Amino acid sequence: MNHLLVVAHGSRLAASNDEVRELVDLMRKHNQVYDRIECAFLELAAPSISEGIQTCIDGGAKEVIVLPYFLAAGTHVVNDIPGLIGEKQQQYPDIVIQQARHVGALPGMIELMLEAAD
Amino acid sequence: MNHLLVVAHGSRLAASNDEVRELVDLMRKHNQVYDRIECAFLELAAPSISEGIQTCIDGGAKEVIVLPYFLAAGTHVVNDIPGLIGEKQQQYPDIVIQQARHVGALPGMIELMLEAAD
Repeated sequence: MNHLLVVAHGSRLAASNDEVRELVDLMRKHNQVYDRIECAFLELAAPSISEGIQTCIDGGAKEVIVLPYFLAAGTHVVNDIPGLIGEKQQQYPDIVIQQARHVGALPGMIELMLEAAD
Repeated sequence: MNHLLVVAHGSRLAASNDEVRELVDLMRKHNQVYDRIECAFLELAAPSISEGIQTCIDGGAKEVIVLPYFLAAGTHVVNDIPGLIGEKQQQYPDIVIQQARHVGALPGMIELMLEAAD
């Protein structure tokens, strides 16, 4: 059981958080890789990252991939998210909780952007 | 002559701005679509978006595609960037200056993210 948890920053604008939820809904429709896909927010929106990881574990995940929906490798990606993962990892040593590269650093980003204006 | 201008928010962290510049360098290496690719920043880093558009025009662009390197359709994408484009468009009515969809709304984003953990 591998679950994907997409984590976004979260915004005071409800529409911005909904945009993330809609993206995750679309990912679910195209998904052939994960047993389940959830989303969570670092701040300003629910569920939190810790709650999101917990939902995956409660749902039976043996492996949780945490994908930061961030463009830059700032302190959220480098410190905050790894810290939250570390806490849960300590609590559940038998579950693999792993952080994927942030979206801005995914190799396919270059092609995606070059095709943007097509 | 079509030029692509990648516009990012800009950060107080130099490393974060450099990450955008490095991405644009990689795009240049893979580019088979545009005569030239530049980057610019909404705030906190140089060049500004207006300066970036001007560089394209001075370089002979007849068409400038402005690609917002943003994940959410917030006020920067919906108001600020169109406003700056509008000013330049008024100044250069014979040049096509066009805003592409922001990165978070590009159709390929879903597949990109589903492949993130591979």
